[in-house]
Amino acid sequence: MFHHSSKLQYEVRVDTPDPVFAKYLQQAIGGVEGEIRVAMQYFFQAMGARGDKRFRDMLMMTATEELSHIEFLGHAVALNLEKAPLDAQEAGAADSVVGAIMGGMNPRHVLSSGLSAMPVNANGVPFDMSHIYATGNIGADMLANAMAESSGRVLASRLYNMTDDAGMKDMLSFLIARDTMHQQQWLAAIEELGGIEKCMPVPNSTPEEHEAMKHSYYFLNTSLDEETPQGVWTNGGPSMDGRGTYTARDKAEPEGQVPDLGKAREKSAAQTEQM
Amino acid sequence: MFHHSSKLQYEVRVDTPDPVFAKYLQQAIGGVEGEIRVAMQYFFQAMGARGDKRFRDMLMMTATEELSHIEFLGHAVALNLEKAPLDAQEAGAADSVVGAIMGGMNPRHVLSSGLSAMPVNANGVPFDMSHIYATGNIGADMLANAMAESSGRVLASRLYNMTDDAGMKDMLSFLIARDTMHQQQWLAAIEELGGIEKCMPVPNSTPEEHEAMKHSYYFLNTSLDEETPQGVWTNGGPSMDGRGTYTARDKAEPEGQVPDLGKAREKSAAQTEQM
Amino acid sequence: MFHHSSKLQYEVRVDTPDPVFAKYLQQAIGGVEGEIRVAMQYFFQAMGARGDKRFRDMLMMTATEELSHIEFLGHAVALNLEKAPLDAQEAGAADSVVGAIMGGMNPRHVLSSGLSAMPVNANGVPFDMSHIYATGNIGADMLANAMAESSGRVLASRLYNMTDDAGMKDMLSFLIARDTMHQQQWLAAIEELGGIEKCMPVPNSTPEEHEAMKHSYYFLNTSLDEETPQGVWTNGGPSMDGRGTYTARDKAEPEGQVPDLGKAREKSAAQTEQM
Amino acid sequence: MFHHSSKLQYEVRVDTPDPVFAKYLQQAIGGVEGEIRVAMQYFFQAMGARGDKRFRDMLMMTATEELSHIEFLGHAVALNLEKAPLDAQEAGAADSVVGAIMGGMNPRHVLSSGLSAMPVNANGVPFDMSHIYATGNIGADMLANAMAESSGRVLASRLYNMTDDAGMKDMLSFLIARDTMHQQQWLAAIEELGGIEKCMPVPNSTPEEHEAMKHSYYFLNTSLDEETPQGVWTNGGPSMDGRGTYTARDKAEPEGQVPDLGKAREKSAAQTEQM
Amino acid sequence: MFHHSSKLQYEVRVDTPDPVFAKYLQQAIGGVEGEIRVAMQYFFQAMGARGDKRFRDMLMMTATEELSHIEFLGHAVALNLEKAPLDAQEAGAADSVVGAIMGGMNPRHVLSSGLSAMPVNANGVPFDMSHIYATGNIGADMLANAMAESSGRVLASRLYNMTDDAGMKDMLSFLIARDTMHQQQWLAAIEELGGIEKCMPVPNSTPEEHEAMKHSYYFLNTSLDEETPQGVWTNGGPSMDGRGTYTARDKAEPEGQVPDLGKAREKSAAQTEQM
Amino acid sequence: MFHHSSKLQYEVRVDTPDPVFAKYLQQAIGGVEGEIRVAMQYFFQAMGARGDKRFRDMLMMTATEELSHIEFLGHAVALNLEKAPLDAQEAGAADSVVGAIMGGMNPRHVLSSGLSAMPVNANGVPFDMSHIYATGNIGADMLANAMAESSGRVLASRLYNMTDDAGMKDMLSFLIARDTMHQQQWLAAIEELGGIEKCMPVPNSTPEEHEAMKHSYYFLNTSLDEETPQGVWTNGGPSMDGRGTYTARDKAEPEGQVPDLGKAREKSAAQTEQM
Repeated sequence: MFHHSSKLQYEVRVDTPDPVFAKYLQQAIGGVEGEIRVAMQYFFQAMGARGDKRFRDMLMMTATEELSHIEFLGHAVALNLEKAPLDAQEAGAADSVVGAIMGGMNPRHVLSSGLSAMPVNANGVPFDMSHIYATGNIGADMLANAMAESSGRVLASRLYNMTDDAGMKDMLSFLIARDTMHQQQWLAAIEELGGIEKCMPVPNSTPEEHEAMKHSYYFLNTSLDEETPQGVWTNGGPSMDGRGTYTARDKAEPEGQVPDLGKAREKSAAQTEQM
Repeated sequence: MFHHSSKLQYEVRVDTPDPVFAKYLQQAIGGVEGEIRVAMQYFFQAMGARGDKRFRDMLMMTATEELSHIEFLGHAVALNLEKAPLDAQEAGAADSVVGAIMGGMNPRHVLSSGLSAMPVNANGVPFDMSHIYATGNIGADMLANAMAESSGRVLASRLYNMTDDAGMKDMLSFLIARDTMHQQQWLAAIEELGGIEKCMPVPNSTPEEHEAMKHSYYFLNTSLDEETPQGVWTNGGPSMDGRGTYTARDKAEPEGQVPDLGKAREKSAAQTEQM
Repeated sequence: MFHHSSKLQYEVRVDTPDPVFAKYLQQAIGGVEGEIRVAMQYFFQAMGARGDKRFRDMLMMTATEELSHIEFLGHAVALNLEKAPLDAQEAGAADSVVGAIMGGMNPRHVLSSGLSAMPVNANGVPFDMSHIYATGNIGADMLANAMAESSGRVLASRLYNMTDDAGMKDMLSFLIARDTMHQQQWLAAIEELGGIEKCMPVPNSTPEEHEAMKHSYYFLNTSLDEETPQGVWTNGGPSMDGRGTYTARDKAEPEGQVPDLGKAREKSAAQTEQM
Repeated sequence: MFHHSSKLQYEVRVDTPDPVFAKYLQQAIGGVEGEIRVAMQYFFQAMGARGDKRFRDMLMMTATEELSHIEFLGHAVALNLEKAPLDAQEAGAADSVVGAIMGGMNPRHVLSSGLSAMPVNANGVPFDMSHIYATGNIGADMLANAMAESSGRVLASRLYNMTDDAGMKDMLSFLIARDTMHQQQWLAAIEELGGIEKCMPVPNSTPEEHEAMKHSYYFLNTSLDEETPQGVWTNGGPSMDGRGTYTARDKAEPEGQVPDLGKAREKSAAQTEQM
Repeated sequence: MFHHSSKLQYEVRVDTPDPVFAKYLQQAIGGVEGEIRVAMQYFFQAMGARGDKRFRDMLMMTATEELSHIEFLGHAVALNLEKAPLDAQEAGAADSVVGAIMGGMNPRHVLSSGLSAMPVNANGVPFDMSHIYATGNIGADMLANAMAESSGRVLASRLYNMTDDAGMKDMLSFLIARDTMHQQQWLAAIEELGGIEKCMPVPNSTPEEHEAMKHSYYFLNTSLDEETPQGVWTNGGPSMDGRGTYTARDKAEPEGQVPDLGKAREKSAAQTEQM
Repeated sequence: MFHHSSKLQYEVRVDTPDPVFAKYLQQAIGGVEGEIRVAMQYFFQAMGARGDKRFRDMLMMTATEELSHIEFLGHAVALNLEKAPLDAQEAGAADSVVGAIMGGMNPRHVLSSGLSAMPVNANGVPFDMSHIYATGNIGADMLANAMAESSGRVLASRLYNMTDDAGMKDMLSFLIARDTMHQQQWLAAIEELGGIEKCMPVPNSTPEEHEAMKHSYYFLNTSLDEETPQGVWTNGGPSMDGRGTYTARDKAEPEGQVPDLGKAREKSAAQTEQM
C-alpha cells in the first residue's frame, strides 16, 4: 500500500522560467527514458516477482522513489511555465509573423494543461505502457532496469547541459546521482544472483536440449564486403556464460529453403490470378 | 546497402498447422521482445554510431541477421495458418455457438492479411517504433541490446514449451541459440570497452561536478515497515563503478519543499475560484 | 514524496484461478476505466492544482489510494494465472485442434509477463497516458474525475457479474464501494465550489464578451425527420448556469459560406490540374 | 443516415493567416478536447443507447452538429496556412540558421497535407479512438459528455486568447457558445433522469449486496503528514446519493496481506534461482 | 454542414446473434480497411481539396455515405451482442474451466461498451487517425481511395464467408456492392484527370530538373541469386507515364560512400571511449 | 536472407547542417509516406505472396532497396545534426528568452538519439506498423504500393523545395527518381495481371452472388443542396471493370429501419432507468 508526505523528495527551484525548457524537461517525465517508465516498470516487476523476496522489496522501494521523482519533475515543469504566454501579445506575435516562444514551446502546455506538467515526452507524445518491461525473469528484468537507468542518466546529463538555470542544474545533478545508484543497485542484484556468468544466458533455466547449441557461439558476418570485426566476441576465448567458445562465421550462408506458399485458397478473397 | 538471397536463413517446417499458435508466434515478430525490434534497434544504433568502427559494423551485421529472422518467422506464421478456417463451417461454428478456433485465433489473420504474418504482437497490437532504443551512447545501447536479447530468449523458450510441433521446436531451438550468442556478443562489446566497471556509470563522460555525488551510492528504503533488503547494494563494499561505497538510507525523508503553485493566472481559463 | 507499506490495502483471495478472468481483470488495471488512469490523473491534476489547497490535497491523497488499488489488482491477476498452461499439454491442445484456454487467455500473460499482471487492458492494448485529463481548471477536472469513477464502477460491477469466484467477488465489492465514495467526493468538491450552477459553464472565468451568447442556449435539431426531443434542455426554463433560457432550433440551417480554397499553389506538389 | 449541405454551419474568416496558429487550432480538431472526439463519442453512444429514445436522439443530433464543427475548423486551419512557406526562402531560412516559422509550424502541414487540416492535435499526434467513451450506461455517458464539453470550452477559451485575428475570435466565440449549450444539455439530461442524487452512484442498478457498503462513504487520508482536507466530503452530512454519510479516515491502514507469489513454476522461463 | 435522418441507409437483420462474429465485424468499423477510415479520409481530403470543385463534392458526398455505413454496421454489432453472456453462468464457465464464448469474444463488448459497437478493430485496437491519408494532391488521394476501397471489399468478402447468418450476408452483400462503386468512382476520377498516364508520376507538377531522371526507369534487382523477374516493368517498352523506357539493373551496386560520423562531440553524453 | 554491403546506395552530402531540416527529413524515414513504411510493407507482402512468383520476387527486391533508402536518409539526418546545439549557449538561449533552434528542432535529436536519426516522423511521432498494408490480395497490394510511392514522391518533392542545400537537393532528386520507378513498376504489375479492368473490382474472385449488384454502379449524392457532380462516374458509360454502367442517384434515401435496441438487460450495469 502507498502513502504520501507533503514535501518533495528534493528541493526544486527555477530561477528563470523557460517554457521551451519545460518542453525539454517533459522527456524526463513521459519519455521512454523518464520517470513514469521506471516507476511503473519496477512496480509491475515487483508485483510479478517470484523467488528471493529481497528483489521484490528492492523493486517496490525504488518504484516508490521514482514516483517521487515524477512529482518534483512535475513541479519543475510547472515552474518553468510560470510566465508562458497566454495571449498573442505575450507570445510576441505582435512583433513578428510568429513569436519564437509560441512556436517553440509545447502548445498543449497552454491549451491542454493550463501551464503544468503532462505525462508526455518532449515531442508531446503521451507515454504508453508498452514500455513497461516486466518479464517474470529476474535476470532479464535487472538488465532492463540497468538499461533504463543508463538511458535515464544519459538524458539527465543532456538536460543538464541544455540549461543555464542554476536551480535546474541543481535538481538535475540530484537525478544524475540517483540514476548512478540505480544503475549500481540493479547490477549489484545480478552480482547477488551469481554474476553475469551465472545468470547467462537469460533465461538460465532453459534446458540445453531446447537449444541448437552449434549455433550458440558464433558471430555471424552478414556483410558482403566488410571483414568480421574482431574482439572478445570472436577471439576464441570462453563465452561469458562459460558454456562455449567465441568464434565467427565470416560469411553468412542461408541454411533454409526458398519459401513458397503456393497458390491462394478459395474463399481467401485473393485475386483469381493467385488461385 | 542491403541485398537479399532467396533462401531462408534457417529451414522452416510445420508438421501440424495451428492457427492459435500462429497468433502466439506473432509475439516473436511484432512483440517488444521480437525480431522487428532488434533488427531496427541495431540498424538505428549503427546509423548513429560514433567512435570505434567495430561496434558500428557489429550492429549493422546483426541488424541484417535479424531481418532474416523476421523472414523465416513470417514464413512459419503463414505455414501455421495454412488450414485456418475461411468460412463458418470450417470454423466449427455450425457445431456450437462459436468455434474455439474462430474465437482463439487472431481474426485479422483471416480478415486483414489473408493467412499470412503481420507486424503485430500476440494481441494483434502493431509494433511501434518507440521501442527502438538508440541513444548515441554505446554503453547504454549495448545494455539495451543485451536486455532485448534476454527478453527475446525468454520468449523463444516459452514458445518452445507451448508447442508440440517438431518443426516449430526445431526452428525455436535455433532462435534460442542465436539469442544466446547475441546476448554474449553485446556483453563482450562491453568487455572490450573495459568492462562494466569502466563503462559505469553510463554515461561515463558526465563530469563529476554535474553530479550530486553524496546521493550517488545509497539505497533508499522508502518502505514504512520493511527492513532494507541486504545485499551487494548495501554491503559497504565498493560500488561496481569503483567510484563509491554501497550504503543504505533505511528511512526516506523528504528534502524538498511543499510544492505550491499559488493562484491561477488570468486568461488561463481556470475557474474564477482558482484565481 | 511517496512511501510504501508491505501489506495490500485490501485482502485478495482467488479460490479458483481462471486465466481468462485474468484477461478480463486487466481492464481494471490498464483500461481507460481502470486504476492506472485514475492514479495518474489525480497525480497530474494535483501537480497542476492552483488555488484552494484542499483540492490539491484531496487529489494527491486519492491518487495515492489508487496506486494501492493497482497493487492489489495486480496481485489478483497473478493469482488467477497460477495454473495457466505453460505447455501444449496443459493448454489442452493435445485433445483438440486448439484448447479453449490457450485461445481464450491473453497469450502475453504467458509469453511476456510470465504469469503476472501487465499495464494493459482486456484486449492486451497497453494503457496510454493521453487519457490523463488534467486541464488546470478545477471544474473540468472534477467532472472528469466523477466521470472516470462512474465508468470505473460500471466496469467493477460488470466484472463482479462475470465471475463466480467468492474471493474475486469480495475484492470487487470493495472496489465498487471505493468508486462510490470517489464519485461522491469529486461531486462534493463541486458543491464546495458553489455547485453545478456556479461552476457552469466551465470555465466560469471566460468573459461573456468572448462568447456569442445568442448561440449559447438552444438545442440544435440536425435531423431531417425527427422531432426535437423535449426535456429540460428545451423547456423554456432557466439554464443550469442561470445565465440563459433553454430553447430549441427545430431545424438546423447553415450560417456560413461554401468553403472554397481555390487553386493549389505552385511548389505545393499538387497535381498540375489543381493549379 | 447522414446528409450534407454545402455551406458551413458558421462563417469562417481569417484576416491574417498564421501557420503557427494553424498548429494550435489543430487541438480543437484532433485533440482529446476537440471535435472529432465529441462527434464520434456521441455517435457511438447513440448507436449503443438503450432505454428512453430521447437520449438517443439528442446524442445523434449533437453528433451531427459536431461533424459540422470539424468542417468549419478544418476550413479555418487551411485558411491560416494560405501563405505558409513552401520553400526555404519563404521560410526565412536564408536570413538565419533557421526561420522561426519553419521551426514553429507543424512540418506536416506542408509535407503531408499540403496546407490543409489534419486529424491530429497541436503536437501533430493523431487522434485515437480510445478516447471515445461510450459505456452503455446513460449516466456515465452524460457525465463523460459534460466533461468533454468542459474541456472543449476551456480549450476554445484559451485559443481565443492566443490569437489577435478578429475572424478567428469570432469563430471561437461561436464555439464557446455551443460548448456552453452542450454542457447545459447533458447536465439537463441528468436532471431529466432524476438529478445527480437519483443517478448516483453510477451505475444505480448495482445491487447493494454487491457493494462493501462500509467502505462507501469515507474519504481516505493516505498522507503521513497532512490533515484531512475538510469539506462537504467529510462533513458528516448526507452523501450526494442520499444513501450514506460523508466521513473520513484520517489515517490509512492496510487491511490486506503481504502479497507473495512464492517460487516460479518450471517451464516459466524464469531464472533457475527463482524456482 | 451535416444532417441526419432517423432510418439506416440499409436494413440490418441478425437472425442468430453471435458475439464472436461481433468481434470480427468490428474490423469493418474500426479497422484500417473499415468505414471510419474512409469516412474520415474523404472528409479530410474534401476539406483540403483545391482545384476542380467536382472532386471536392464527390469526396464530401461519399464521406457522408460512409458515415451512414458506420451507423448500420454499429447496429449490426449491437444486434450480434444481444445475447452475449453477462455473467459466469451465461458464459458457460460453470461447465468447463473457461467457456469458449467468454474467451472468444471481445471482453470489452461486455466490460466497456455494454453490448454495443466500439471504434476498434477485430483485435480491440482503437482506430487511430494516422490512417487518414489526405495529401493535398488529388492524384495521390484518388489512388489512396481506390486502395482503401479495395482492402475494404476484400474485408467484406472475407466477412461474408465467415458467417452463416442470412441477415449478415445480406448486409455484407450491400457493402461489397458499394465498395465496388467506390473503387470505380475514384478510378473514374483519375480517368477524368487524363488517366493514369497523364497523372503519373504523382505529383505530375514536379519539375523534371528536380529529378535524377537517369534513375527513374530501371527496376533494381537487389537479390544475389535471383534473376530479375521479367514483365512490363522490364520489357523495354514505354513507361506508363510516357516519359521513359522500362529497363532493369540486374545487379545492385552501391553508389555512395561508407558512412562515417567520426567521433562523438563533447557534451553529447556519449561514452568517453567514443570521443 | 539478407546481406549488407558497407557503402550507401547513394552518396549523401550536406553542405550546411540544419537541425530544423533534420526534423523535416524524418518524415521521409518514419512518416507514413516514408521508407520504413514501404520497406516493411513490401517485405510483409512478399512473405504473404501466393501465386505468380514474379510478384513475390519484385516485392522482396524492392523491400531490400527501401532498406537502403532508410540507411542513406538516416545518414543525412545525422549530418544535418552535426552542429546542433548541445548546451544553452549554442542554442542561443543567452541572447533571447529562447533560441529559435532550440525551439524549432526536434528536442529528442539531442535528448534521446544523441544527434542521429530516429524512426519517427517530422512531429517526433514513432512510426507504427499498423501502416503496413499487406492483404494477401495482389491487386489491393499493388494499389497500396502505387499509392505509397505517390505520397512518397509528393513528400520528396516538398522536401526538395524546403531546402537550399545542394547536397540535400541532389539526394532528394534521387529519391524522386526512384519513387517514379516504383510507382511505374507496381502499376506495371497490374498491367501484367490484365490491367485495371481485369483486376477490378478487387477482389475479382468474389462471386457475383455475394454482391447486391443493383447497388454496385451508382454514385450516391448525399447532399441536400448540391447537384451531382458529373463525370466518368455518372456518364452512363461502362464501368471500369466492364461489368456495369455508371449512373447516379441524385438523392439519397434511407432504405433501412429506425434502429432500436430496446431496453438494457439486467446485469449490464446500465442505469435502472434504461431497463
